[in-house]
Amino acid sequence: MNESRLVDREAPIGIFDSGVGGLTVLKEIFKILPFENGVYFGDVGRTPYGGRSKDIITEFTRQDIAFLIEQKVKFIVCACNTASSVALEDIKKDYDIDMIGVIEPGARAAAERTKSGKIGIIGTHATINSNAYAKYIHEIDPDLKVFSLACPLFVPLAEEGYIDKEATYYIAVDYLQTMKDVEVDTLVLGCTHYPLLKHVIGDVMGDDVLLIDSGEETARAARDILSESNLMNPSASQTPCPEGEQKYFVSDVPERFSGVASRFLGREVSRITRVDISRY
Amino acid sequence: MNESRLVDREAPIGIFDSGVGGLTVLKEIFKILPFENGVYFGDVGRTPYGGRSKDIITEFTRQDIAFLIEQKVKFIVCACNTASSVALEDIKKDYDIDMIGVIEPGARAAAERTKSGKIGIIGTHATINSNAYAKYIHEIDPDLKVFSLACPLFVPLAEEGYIDKEATYYIAVDYLQTMKDVEVDTLVLGCTHYPLLKHVIGDVMGDDVLLIDSGEETARAARDILSESNLMNPSASQTPCPEGEQKYFVSDVPERFSGVASRFLGREVSRITRVDISRY
Repeated sequence: MNESRLVDREAPIGIFDSGVGGLTVLKEIFKILPFENGVYFGDVGRTPYGGRSKDIITEFTRQDIAFLIEQKVKFIVCACNTASSVALEDIKKDYDIDMIGVIEPGARAAAERTKSGKIGIIGTHATINSNAYAKYIHEIDPDLKVFSLACPLFVPLAEEGYIDKEATYYIAVDYLQTMKDVEVDTLVLGCTHYPLLKHVIGDVMGDDVLLIDSGEETARAARDILSESNLMNPSASQTPCPEGEQKYFVSDVPERFSGVASRFLGREVSRITRVDISRY
Repeated sequence: MNESRLVDREAPIGIFDSGVGGLTVLKEIFKILPFENGVYFGDVGRTPYGGRSKDIITEFTRQDIAFLIEQKVKFIVCACNTASSVALEDIKKDYDIDMIGVIEPGARAAAERTKSGKIGIIGTHATINSNAYAKYIHEIDPDLKVFSLACPLFVPLAEEGYIDKEATYYIAVDYLQTMKDVEVDTLVLGCTHYPLLKHVIGDVMGDDVLLIDSGEETARAARDILSESNLMNPSASQTPCPEGEQKYFVSDVPERFSGVASRFLGREVSRITRVDISRY
């Protein structure tokens, strides 16, 4: 193994999202790849992507990726469901670097675990309109029945910390009744904000419905790809295994950012640098 | 009166907002200045401004104004509470053209109409943190008591059409209880989205509390300024008075735009042109 190869393997993983939501994916990556270095970019200056057009989402996603590549990352995780479903496939072709989105791992897990063959997908307007989850699921098994539903208010509710409130329960009942009516046995949380409302969504759907967290599945898929491509950080084999270094970049630092970010990540978010992303 | 003066007076009024919210202000302008031509710019590609930093809001506001000036408008209405409270005062100094924001008219109406001397202000995080309403009110009367509160979930609830839902009522009760506790007799709707929830807010606050719609007050203030500056469209004196021409520009055209926009404006939104606002 030559030196340049070693440098490659120690390079950070690049993770980006339209804002803070991707921190729930990073949280899962920390759990199973704690030794990896990471660069997180959150486009909080232009968040949310979920209600925007394909053109704008593609333009923003290209800039996010260009920034991470400048940071010399070895692998890119698109932790945003909206960008993954609308823009990533087109952009991927233009680069040599491995990239993974959150759709395929979530779709695969749902297809493998459903018993009744009825899968529900919830996400932003853009994710649902793209039909990306259904397309992946049908590539795996065309006989599976997929029901998709936009639940846009779950994003601001999660960001505002409206987790255990009566209003959130009423909105969840409102949104999810059709999923109960069609009797899905598996529901994909197709937006990185939704794991914060997992408890409420689970209560409404009932114990018999399996909730798939796309972020969790994506972290597992990232581990498999790094392992297969021999890109895992060599420090992984050290005992004790040292923890990787994490850097955070954002396109804006609003007053309430670090509080919201820490709630999403489940640990303190430090070393935050602001980037002028429109220049990429 | 020379010809160039005539051209000036026929020029459109420029109105801008961070997104669709400003259409509630335009709706009020239509009512009292129906003969004026108008250019509306909605920054839907970067909406919402309310949770962003002062730097970013100022940068975006400068671009919005630069675009309207290129459209040769005679007068500018900043229909966004966040931009009006955080950025407008600084930017105004750099231009000759008259500009008005939504804060001063709303603040003035509240100061004039309160009887108990206790005024409540509700708005986005950025508007409330700026303390702009309280500053204007205290310039008019330093003895008035002002209570300010961010109600960020009202924005997505209005955009998603969650107007008459139980959940919206619960969130309004949650937010507004402190305003009831301190017994304000006047409540300023300090966000252009809030008039859509006027009914719910009014129900929660009770009949004794006067709701001030900043958009309505701004339309009146705009009429007064045009009249005093002799900038009113000369067609105003024709009988019958012809209706002005309206043009709409946006920084993105998401799939659901025209439906949401029509709900905010109370009439169909047509002739929508997309602008690449980051180039301004």
